[in-house]
Amino acid sequence: MVKNSKPVIAVDIGGTKISTALFSADGKMRANTVCPTSASEGVNAVIERLLTVIEDILTQNKLTPPKIDAISIACAGGINTAKGIVVTPSPHLPGWTGLPLAAIIKKKTGVVTYVLNDASAAALGEQRFGVGKGVKNLVLFTVGTGIGGGIITDGKLYLGARGGAGEFGHMTVETQGLKCGCGNIGCLEMYASGTALVNDVLGRLRSGQKSSLLDMAKGDLTKITAKIVDDAARRDDKLAQEAIVQMAYYLGVGMVNVVNIFNPEMVVISGGMAALGEVLIAPGRMMVEKRSFSINAQAARVVIGSLGNEAGVYGAAAYAFDVRRAK
Amino acid sequence: MVKNSKPVIAVDIGGTKISTALFSADGKMRANTVCPTSASEGVNAVIERLLTVIEDILTQNKLTPPKIDAISIACAGGINTAKGIVVTPSPHLPGWTGLPLAAIIKKKTGVVTYVLNDASAAALGEQRFGVGKGVKNLVLFTVGTGIGGGIITDGKLYLGARGGAGEFGHMTVETQGLKCGCGNIGCLEMYASGTALVNDVLGRLRSGQKSSLLDMAKGDLTKITAKIVDDAARRDDKLAQEAIVQMAYYLGVGMVNVVNIFNPEMVVISGGMAALGEVLIAPGRMMVEKRSFSINAQAARVVIGSLGNEAGVYGAAAYAFDVRRAK
Repeated sequence: MVKNSKPVIAVDIGGTKISTALFSADGKMRANTVCPTSASEGVNAVIERLLTVIEDILTQNKLTPPKIDAISIACAGGINTAKGIVVTPSPHLPGWTGLPLAAIIKKKTGVVTYVLNDASAAALGEQRFGVGKGVKNLVLFTVGTGIGGGIITDGKLYLGARGGAGEFGHMTVETQGLKCGCGNIGCLEMYASGTALVNDVLGRLRSGQKSSLLDMAKGDLTKITAKIVDDAARRDDKLAQEAIVQMAYYLGVGMVNVVNIFNPEMVVISGGMAALGEVLIAPGRMMVEKRSFSINAQAARVVIGSLGNEAGVYGAAAYAFDVRRAK
Repeated sequence: MVKNSKPVIAVDIGGTKISTALFSADGKMRANTVCPTSASEGVNAVIERLLTVIEDILTQNKLTPPKIDAISIACAGGINTAKGIVVTPSPHLPGWTGLPLAAIIKKKTGVVTYVLNDASAAALGEQRFGVGKGVKNLVLFTVGTGIGGGIITDGKLYLGARGGAGEFGHMTVETQGLKCGCGNIGCLEMYASGTALVNDVLGRLRSGQKSSLLDMAKGDLTKITAKIVDDAARRDDKLAQEAIVQMAYYLGVGMVNVVNIFNPEMVVISGGMAALGEVLIAPGRMMVEKRSFSINAQAARVVIGSLGNEAGVYGAAAYAFDVRRAK
């Protein structure tokens, strides 16, 4: 990591929380504050809270805005990074459509601000600071309520023409499949996300399959979450295990596809569902070995990310360092 | 194009023919020889013929090997470009598995030799000399008997870890679909290639659907080719038209997927089936508009390549020029 003259503030705006971290000029995380957010809040409330957190971090570290090189924000949704605009926000951020987030934060703080897609940031984070350190070609799936993706080609973050690259969750894997909220059909996200897992479990329960999940949820199916399904599977619940096997199979299909497309050295699984660990990725690893082109399969290691839910802030920081270095 | 001090020999080894071209130091094609090859020939016969063609071109242009900067070969199959090895050849080149093609040609000619995948070469060709001139992020499908792909990211050819990137024909689009020769299931190639088109037509004929194709093939179904299906469709044959619509639909699924993954400025359709023109790509263009993420759909132009079957040699030449420039 090239030395930067000034520290960087890195932010990850997710559906339920905002992580804000201070990175010193040598690329080390010095402080990290996580605060909740909710879909019902307006844009202004979220931005005000973010500004307060930034101010607190600066005060606690005896810094002022002129001493900061940049604020770099990872944000869920379709982000035009060149313009710093949230073009199509994630459903968790209603009202953010077309929001010139970089300009707003810059105006309020006086600090140059970048915005990039959160999954792209996670890929850069894992490649600079995490499991993919030193890997030249890396693809990352964020598997949570939805599925996002990030791409490192020849050592650099690839964002595409307008920052929209890496939507691995929205490749069709079933042409006659489920209609996706994105407007496409049979998207991977409809089969391999946390939401897909829960929907699959509910379908199995409604069709009369037996499971300890009914007791665990005390009969209230709305209480069933991906976490509860994981817990049940670990306690040998057959239905929960079958649903996870199905989800892992589809994630494997997605892995085979990106391995054939990118010939990466590494496929990283990140996001909330990565907590399932090997159960989630081992089938995909085997499928890559068996089904991908041999030249591609031989190169690809399939792993869980090592930065957990901090991948996004690490990546946002790395992005700011990269921009500085390119100048 | 940066000026090179010496000319380059560019070669495209396909299933049925070898194109060999001389490019002058200023990047212009000066001579181009096409000679046939066939699957039944051994490796040595093909290589001997290639060497003869190269010698002829040099003699005709009053050149000797020391006056040539490089020989750059586009070749079908999984190519390890860094090592110059044909790792997994296309079925048209049996016996080429593991062939150290670059080393063999270098030994025989004394000229530095590169080998890269033919679809990757076609993408580079179209981006440097063809319809994609100046486009930074471009993806190309070669649609012929199979489906290949090439990727330009941030203005550069992306080959992946071992030269195996861009296998767009081998992404699963039907998880319960047809078994593909590559070992994967429901690959795009099984639905949107020339071979898939002919198979689809044969299936329809066998199930009793009426068509002028039966007359055109004089009752011999083995005579039906993609070209004949195209001809029949242009003469309003319903069956042929339906089969092409189906193929174009699947190609559109592939386009939507790569547009969501790469957020490219351009999707180029190349290869033999590109002769179908707008009939083949118009449905996909509409699907990209309707189904891809809006930020991605807005950026992407879907077009037919402008270099026809010379895209490969142009790309091979561009690759050699790039290597030289990087030095």
